[in-house]
Amino acid sequence: MTQTPLQASVAYAHAHTDAFIEQYKELLRIPSIGADPACRADVRCAADWIAAEMVRLGLDHVQVLETEGQPAVYGDWLHAGPEAPTVLLYAHYDVQPVDPLALWVTPPFEPDVREGKLYARGAVDDKSGVFLHLKALESVLNATGKLPINAKIIFEGEEESGSPTMEPFIRAHRDLLNADAVVISDGGSSTEIPEIGASVRGIVTAEVHVKGPDRDLHSGGFGGVVHNPTHMVARIIAALHDDEGRIQIPGFYDAVLPVSESARAWIEAEEPNAIEEARKEVGTKPFWGVPGYSYLERATAQPTCDVNGIFGGYQGSGTKTVLPAEAGFKVSMRLVNNQEPADIAAKFLAFVERFTCETVDIEARIISSGWPAEFVTTGPIAQAAIDAYAPTWGHAPKMSRGGGSVPIVGMFQHVLGAPVVSLGLGHGGGVHSPNEYYNLSYFDKNVDTAIHFYFNLVRG
Amino acid sequence: MTQTPLQASVAYAHAHTDAFIEQYKELLRIPSIGADPACRADVRCAADWIAAEMVRLGLDHVQVLETEGQPAVYGDWLHAGPEAPTVLLYAHYDVQPVDPLALWVTPPFEPDVREGKLYARGAVDDKSGVFLHLKALESVLNATGKLPINAKIIFEGEEESGSPTMEPFIRAHRDLLNADAVVISDGGSSTEIPEIGASVRGIVTAEVHVKGPDRDLHSGGFGGVVHNPTHMVARIIAALHDDEGRIQIPGFYDAVLPVSESARAWIEAEEPNAIEEARKEVGTKPFWGVPGYSYLERATAQPTCDVNGIFGGYQGSGTKTVLPAEAGFKVSMRLVNNQEPADIAAKFLAFVERFTCETVDIEARIISSGWPAEFVTTGPIAQAAIDAYAPTWGHAPKMSRGGGSVPIVGMFQHVLGAPVVSLGLGHGGGVHSPNEYYNLSYFDKNVDTAIHFYFNLVRG
Repeated sequence: MTQTPLQASVAYAHAHTDAFIEQYKELLRIPSIGADPACRADVRCAADWIAAEMVRLGLDHVQVLETEGQPAVYGDWLHAGPEAPTVLLYAHYDVQPVDPLALWVTPPFEPDVREGKLYARGAVDDKSGVFLHLKALESVLNATGKLPINAKIIFEGEEESGSPTMEPFIRAHRDLLNADAVVISDGGSSTEIPEIGASVRGIVTAEVHVKGPDRDLHSGGFGGVVHNPTHMVARIIAALHDDEGRIQIPGFYDAVLPVSESARAWIEAEEPNAIEEARKEVGTKPFWGVPGYSYLERATAQPTCDVNGIFGGYQGSGTKTVLPAEAGFKVSMRLVNNQEPADIAAKFLAFVERFTCETVDIEARIISSGWPAEFVTTGPIAQAAIDAYAPTWGHAPKMSRGGGSVPIVGMFQHVLGAPVVSLGLGHGGGVHSPNEYYNLSYFDKNVDTAIHFYFNLVRG
Repeated sequence: MTQTPLQASVAYAHAHTDAFIEQYKELLRIPSIGADPACRADVRCAADWIAAEMVRLGLDHVQVLETEGQPAVYGDWLHAGPEAPTVLLYAHYDVQPVDPLALWVTPPFEPDVREGKLYARGAVDDKSGVFLHLKALESVLNATGKLPINAKIIFEGEEESGSPTMEPFIRAHRDLLNADAVVISDGGSSTEIPEIGASVRGIVTAEVHVKGPDRDLHSGGFGGVVHNPTHMVARIIAALHDDEGRIQIPGFYDAVLPVSESARAWIEAEEPNAIEEARKEVGTKPFWGVPGYSYLERATAQPTCDVNGIFGGYQGSGTKTVLPAEAGFKVSMRLVNNQEPADIAAKFLAFVERFTCETVDIEARIISSGWPAEFVTTGPIAQAAIDAYAPTWGHAPKMSRGGGSVPIVGMFQHVLGAPVVSLGLGHGGGVHSPNEYYNLSYFDKNVDTAIHFYFNLVRG
């Protein structure tokens, strides 16, 4: 009985599982922390490793492309003919910092297998996205001599830093990256049921510094006559919300649309489970939020404005009666549907500007931003992704509407104008935490999912 | 021509200036930082050094007395007869911490003379008060065989920590410390004109912690559904003042009296000079304060409420989109005339209590407190102090109404019921800062001032 190309590809992958996992450890050993200037050479080393692997696979136009930040790796295989779709496969090879290092059972860049789990920083977020696509492509190419689709592959090196220089990069390489759809493989699942992304919130982060006297003063000598910068910081933060949590930045909600039908249905279905999961993370205190919305509506479909840190003056034990020279705060705002990062950034800066006075200097600056985005979840390309899981997992994937932000999604949508589909590969836990691990019992399933997805794109 | 006892005492002192200064270095070498647990043995060592010196001088009842905190050193000489006044001489032998150590030209506990200045931590604040009284007493005793007054001497070891355990100590030793007047020699002058204290503000310091989720959360996952502790901190701080700086703690101003005649006269006379001096410290920004009061009224005769530090969440560079588990602030309130520390402490705690809610825990606690106090500036004992300067300085002292707090003053007033007089000894700068120094060209003048004061108490 002759195997189909799909069957042959899957058989090839399964025959090489052990070799693939050994090779994966090579990539995991490279400490490609994109946010750490000390790892700059390691990030480059990871990019080179990936490019060499692409060449070995027989991809064309393989290149390590410079950005204003960390390099991106590109390769393509465009010989499937004009009838086949062209898809841009995206993952990122940079990883989160490893602090607190002391909590790791084994060093984060010395991959270690314990009880079927492969422990290493980046094992699921997101070297798995990089490596599983490479191994799926290799399996199809080696088993069948070709791909069913035209594939462009772009692997980013600064996603964990908020992709600060990727928007101009995509704009500059618009033709190279242009595709019928973009496939985001960032992270994976942590439960028995695979997940597929439906939406992410946008983001604007900012920092505000309030400067008073030239140096810290004695609160006895100058209390009452010198404006205290911590008081101004508190005034600004307190004015950000009303007593029930509504954001008071003028015009902040202007572009927020009513929750869509599909989001509403998802929220209603997922609400009980989401609350139960969140309860495990948060502790025992009641949840909080603007009245009139459900838990998941607040967590995924409403915008937020959260101070991430406040600082100023003496923070040690006991008392130091100082009137601080300076104080400040950091803030992240999560955006939904029609809110535009540039518009919200301008409104935040205008809001802070209102507090201008002669007795302290107030400096506000935007640090990073990203668009809110809806993934495409209907139509043939989305269906190809959805149907890629059941054959090996035994389950259709759950939709996931995320409260977090993946700025690259909005960049692809806005700059390329292409639909963006989520295809999570990898399975594990400890993402952004110590002892990140990949669950090796899912390795075959994850490669299979990618292979099925490629073939699903050309079925019928 | 026979010398008077005063003249003989001064002559003795002047004949021993070099020896005194060499001996002073011994005391300055002992790192008696009362607030630093690592210096506990050194603080004890300084107390023992002083007690040994008292014994050598021929004082009676010399003892190192335990407190709940750092030891106090006591000695007396009570042989001047019932007609002579009994005065309690007070100074403190503990010193400020030395941070930032890197800014010291020579190590803080290796006394070094450069251009007539003796550099060492505590050189003026306040080992000078301790040592100059000891040397003045030694000069009078050795030159005349007796003192003109009955003297009790108490040297404290925890003043720089706010004298946290001195009130129960004074209460427990009320009979031992009882006197016709208490003389506070803490610090000294920094200009050509000697200063004598007229008032200090009281103080209450407190700390507030706001606790939310069990650990830091991702602001994407939990923004909008978990109450952010930094927002509550900002709400509390912002509510402490109205937009013009008036303190909003209910009842805070209830016990504030109109400025006294003598304070008003002092304020009007000193205002221009005070503003000029403050301008050097503060930088170029305009001063600030509650409308309707002059600069010095705000700085010395009105109460304050200043946040000394705020903290919570991420304070590093760039962005970390965390929803912090905890945040807080430290605050110092300066009190005037009839305000009672316990009453203000209770009102502050009640104010914070109003913010109680189910979604975060708010914990407030009082750290330290001290009474506002007026020094006695009229009557024979105060006049003895005032007249002690002119013979050697060539100037009468200026009155100084301080914005800071010296809790021990109010303790002596409230527990002993005794009038408290200020007699600043020492001359120098760098108090509470790196490179503290004693101006040695004033050493003789400072010993002379103490000697004149003792004799002035029994004149005419």
